Amino acid sequence: MPSDPLSDARIVDAWHKNAAPWTEAVRQQQIESRRLVTNQAIIDAVTGGSPPPRTALDIGCGEGWLVRALAERGIRATGVDVVPDLIERATRAGGGEFRVASYEAVADGALALTVDAAVANFSLIGKESVDRLLARVPQLLTPRGRFIIQTLHPAVATGDLPYVDGWREGSWAGFGAAFSDPAPWYFRTAESWVRLLVASGLRLLELREPVHPISRKPASLILIADTSG
Amino acid sequence: MPSDPLSDARIVDAWHKNAAPWTEAVRQQQIESRRLVTNQAIIDAVTGGSPPPRTALDIGCGEGWLVRALAERGIRATGVDVVPDLIERATRAGGGEFRVASYEAVADGALALTVDAAVANFSLIGKESVDRLLARVPQLLTPRGRFIIQTLHPAVATGDLPYVDGWREGSWAGFGAAFSDPAPWYFRTAESWVRLLVASGLRLLELREPVHPISRKPASLILIADTSG
Repeated sequence: MPSDPLSDARIVDAWHKNAAPWTEAVRQQQIESRRLVTNQAIIDAVTGGSPPPRTALDIGCGEGWLVRALAERGIRATGVDVVPDLIERATRAGGGEFRVASYEAVADGALALTVDAAVANFSLIGKESVDRLLARVPQLLTPRGRFIIQTLHPAVATGDLPYVDGWREGSWAGFGAAFSDPAPWYFRTAESWVRLLVASGLRLLELREPVHPISRKPASLILIADTSG
Repeated sequence: MPSDPLSDARIVDAWHKNAAPWTEAVRQQQIESRRLVTNQAIIDAVTGGSPPPRTALDIGCGEGWLVRALAERGIRATGVDVVPDLIERATRAGGGEFRVASYEAVADGALALTVDAAVANFSLIGKESVDRLLARVPQLLTPRGRFIIQTLHPAVATGDLPYVDGWREGSWAGFGAAFSDPAPWYFRTAESWVRLLVASGLRLLELREPVHPISRKPASLILIADTSG
C-alpha cells in the first residue's frame, strides 16, 4: 500500500530511492549552498562548543560526510540513518560508527549512548517523527551536551506560500536526472522550531543565520540548544 | 551641531519632531499592520505570562497606548520615553505613570523599580543605546519577570539589502505629510537579537512571528525572555 503522499513515511520511501545519486551529489560537492555556506556552518556550530565536544551523534547522517568531517577534527562521531543503503555507503567510507535506525526507534531508546553534541543537518524533514525524536534528545546528551539543528531558513524557504507550518511538496529542481520521487517536507516557522525545542526540554542558546555570499540572504537557520535551565 | 545622520542621537532628534503626527497616527489607528496584527500580538505576549503580570514597564512608550491597553487588563504599567512631548501626551491620556528618561539613563539605573513584564514595542531602534539598555533589563525584572520585545521581522524588513546588522535610513513612506525627518534605524538579524538577549543575561523562552492576515508573511518578530537558567 503506498504511503500518504504527505507523510513521514513518504519521506523515508523517497530517500530509499535516491541514496545513490544523493551520495554522489554530496561527495562531488554538487550542492552550491552546502559548498559555499552550510557545510562549514554546521561544522563550526558543532565544534564551537566550550569545551569542544569529544563525541557527537549525527542524526539523519546520510552518506556520512559530517561524521567524517568531525572525525578529522578529533571528534568521535556516530551516524544514524533510516536508509540502509546510505549507512552502507557511509560505513564503507569510514570515519566513524554508523547504524541503521529510524527516528521512531531513536525516540524509543534504540541508541544507548550519550554525546557532547547531537546534530541534525537538514535532516529534520518530517512531522511526528521529528516531534518524537526531539523529546528523546535530552537523554542523548551528556550534562553539558548541546543539540544543533541546521534547517532551511523558514522566512526564505516559505517562498510565496503563507508563513505557517504545514506539509509541502518536495522537488529535485536543480539536481540531476538520476533523482526521482522527491520527498515531501514539513515546513516549520522559526517560532515553531523554538517552541518544539522548549517543549522537548531544551534551552535555546543561540540562533545562527549563515548568509549566502552571493544572494546575501540567509542560507539556513541553525539552532543551538542545551538541557540546562 | 547636527548629530551623525546614522546614530542613536539622530533617532531621538527625529522623534522630537514627529511627536504630534505620531500621536495622531497611533490614536487614529492609521497604521494597518498595527491595527490588524501587531497591537494585539504585543498585548497577548505581555498578558500571556503564567502567572499573568501585575506590573509592567513600557520602554519607549511613545504616546502611551500600550500602557493604557495594559491598564484596561488590570496591569499597573509605567511608561518611559525620551521625548517629553510624547510623555506629556501620554500623561494627559492617563492610564498609568509616565516618565521622561533616555535609554542611557535607564541603563544607568534611573528607574528604581522592578516589574513582572518589561516590554519594548517597536522601540529598540538604535544601536549602543539598545545594547546598554538590555544589559540593565534583568535588574528591572521581578524574579519570574519576563522581557518582551516586538520588532520588525528581520527577514522581511531586510528587503533587498544584505541580511547583516547595520544602520539603515528611515522613511515615512505611507505616512502623512505631517511627518518629517525620518529616524534612521539599526537593523539586527534574528541571530543578533538572540545573541544580544543572551549576552544581557536573559534566556529566550519563546519567539513569535505574528502573520499578517493579508500578506500571510510575518508582520513582526516577538522575543520573550526571562532571567532564569
